[in-house]
Amino acid sequence: MKLDIAVLSGDGIGPEVTAQAIKALEAIAHSFDHTFIFKEALVGAIAIDKTGNPLPDETLQLCVDTDAVLFGAIGDPKYDNNPSAPVRPEQGLLKLRKELGLYANIRPVKAYSTLIDKSPLKREIIEGTDISIYRELTGGIYFGKKELSDDGTIASDLCEYSKEEIERIAHLAFKAAQKRRKKLTLVDKANVLETSRLWRKVVTEISNKYKDVALDFLFVDNAAMQMILNPSQFDVILTENMFGDIISDEASVIGGSIGLLASASIGNSCCMFEPIHGSYPQATGKGIANPIAAILSAAMLLEHFDLIGEATAIRDAVEKALELNLTTPDLNSNNPLTTEKVGDFIADYI
Amino acid sequence: MKLDIAVLSGDGIGPEVTAQAIKALEAIAHSFDHTFIFKEALVGAIAIDKTGNPLPDETLQLCVDTDAVLFGAIGDPKYDNNPSAPVRPEQGLLKLRKELGLYANIRPVKAYSTLIDKSPLKREIIEGTDISIYRELTGGIYFGKKELSDDGTIASDLCEYSKEEIERIAHLAFKAAQKRRKKLTLVDKANVLETSRLWRKVVTEISNKYKDVALDFLFVDNAAMQMILNPSQFDVILTENMFGDIISDEASVIGGSIGLLASASIGNSCCMFEPIHGSYPQATGKGIANPIAAILSAAMLLEHFDLIGEATAIRDAVEKALELNLTTPDLNSNNPLTTEKVGDFIADYI
Ligand SMILES: CC(C)[C@H](C(=O)O)[C@@H](O)C(=O)O
Ligand SMILES: CC(C)[C@H](C(=O)O)[C@@H](O)C(=O)O
Repeated sequence: MKLDIAVLSGDGIGPEVTAQAIKALEAIAHSFDHTFIFKEALVGAIAIDKTGNPLPDETLQLCVDTDAVLFGAIGDPKYDNNPSAPVRPEQGLLKLRKELGLYANIRPVKAYSTLIDKSPLKREIIEGTDISIYRELTGGIYFGKKELSDDGTIASDLCEYSKEEIERIAHLAFKAAQKRRKKLTLVDKANVLETSRLWRKVVTEISNKYKDVALDFLFVDNAAMQMILNPSQFDVILTENMFGDIISDEASVIGGSIGLLASASIGNSCCMFEPIHGSYPQATGKGIANPIAAILSAAMLLEHFDLIGEATAIRDAVEKALELNLTTPDLNSNNPLTTEKVGDFIADYI
Repeated sequence: MKLDIAVLSGDGIGPEVTAQAIKALEAIAHSFDHTFIFKEALVGAIAIDKTGNPLPDETLQLCVDTDAVLFGAIGDPKYDNNPSAPVRPEQGLLKLRKELGLYANIRPVKAYSTLIDKSPLKREIIEGTDISIYRELTGGIYFGKKELSDDGTIASDLCEYSKEEIERIAHLAFKAAQKRRKKLTLVDKANVLETSRLWRKVVTEISNKYKDVALDFLFVDNAAMQMILNPSQFDVILTENMFGDIISDEASVIGGSIGLLASASIGNSCCMFEPIHGSYPQATGKGIANPIAAILSAAMLLEHFDLIGEATAIRDAVEKALELNLTTPDLNSNNPLTTEKVGDFIADYI
């Protein structure tokens, strides 16, 4: 197979970890006889510094023209305490999601047995946890009308959802549940929000087409509790944009390391793969960033193109590295490897 | 002191636990020579069943006419899976908050050393945790305009905040921080939401009047992680309505038992005190409901009227019950006491 892949490595540790993901993909291309062509472009703070725009037009065009996007991370401390600055790195990411129509963000959360003791939660709580979170990514309060009164004393954000926006991601989530443990939990606040009531209605209708999947509902406040009390109860979680942001970040810490978590953002014609950790500016250039989340994002990319054996080869190599404790300082305080050496081991093992 | 107290014990275990809180208050009245007059009224599912209205006018009037409201819990399974039902118990609670102007919901979260091993989190993570959450309770997306298009395919909820709404609760939160460890964390999503940017701006301005309090900011997704990774970093948390709902419920599980957590809802002329657990319908009438959250809510009531010694007497009695393990089955599997016996012990000890 031939794939054109846009590489948007971004800020902070983005470039370092993305380089390891590329190395893994090159090893796959070599072993399985594929052709992957990588094309780099600017995004985030570095794009603002160089062009004044967190998502330059050429970057967007490249993403549209290629088969998939490999994303690193964005964000720089100089923007962090100034969310009112007229131009900010996050705007690049939000615009990219919207323009590419990446309406579904998929985050697998798994408790790796070798890492369970790193978790802030007790072993017996997290054992067996294996969740796939489907977060709606291009609607809701993120993209609704924002207003500030002329005198600056009243602000508003509109949360809006249409039936179609809910349907398309719901189908993806039900299909995923069919391939997993056949359970789907809709997280909402239907006792308060009109949009949540629409989510419940539409998802309930759609569930008739997936009779083998058990559907249940959880209010978001209760979900925030259940995620800590009993995370292994969940299979597929489906939710709207803002709730997905909160619940998936909460879920990301239960496995013991955020440095392992990958994500896919899917649209009708584009797709993007991204580690969920941020740009981690304090670690930049020190060789201490964990590349596994970026490498597992590459595995999700392969899976998306039905290269299942190839994705498994990456996952096996990652499991081997974890088993042998060939890992960065976040997971290995005695004898840590650098970002690059971890990437080398995984690429070699493939 | 003479206090008129409206008692809205509501549904499920509400009446059982509220009865224990009244017993504790009567013991206080007796020991400290106060007069507390309790007046009962209907709210929630039971009010719907009897009057068709989750918040009958007489109930609201009683709350306005008394000095404080002691609240139990609302909710009944027959409404739970039908958030679109025209009349639901939650509407009573939301209307009560709005009509009484209870703009600040205050929830203390503490790791009791005797209970630390009950927590899903590891001991070293939660030790020392002592947080006071200030959640805005009468604004934001809960009360903004809700719309559903005529054909039922587009729904929306408006999140709106004014400077005044932010200021009044911010002052309360800063004052609380001054009496505590002098740290205030504003939880928002200022990198995405206009309302959050207004919160940051207004809270930053107000912080100039409280120079002894250190102010910091945390995005809500990060806050959901930090609450599990390192809860003892927090002192006072200030946040808007919806984020407060999610983050405070998440926080409520770290202490090991939701059966211990009390809350106060404060307005300019009214105040209400409520255990944060819900109506727990499965436990109704079995004598297994933990009354401590309701009893500690009574302590918050006393504190609100500057009856500090009295509040301390309640807290001491509660600590004693925990120390001697004179508790309900949720905390004591070997030799549990009933709801009533725990209440008796605490009232006697006072
Ligand atoms: C950077 C920010 C706008 C973004 C979001 O909230 O969607 C991030 O938190 C994420 O989850 O990818
Ligand atoms: C019952 C519900 C409307 C309510 C809320 O969301 O405010 C509850 O969850 C709470 O936190 O008191």
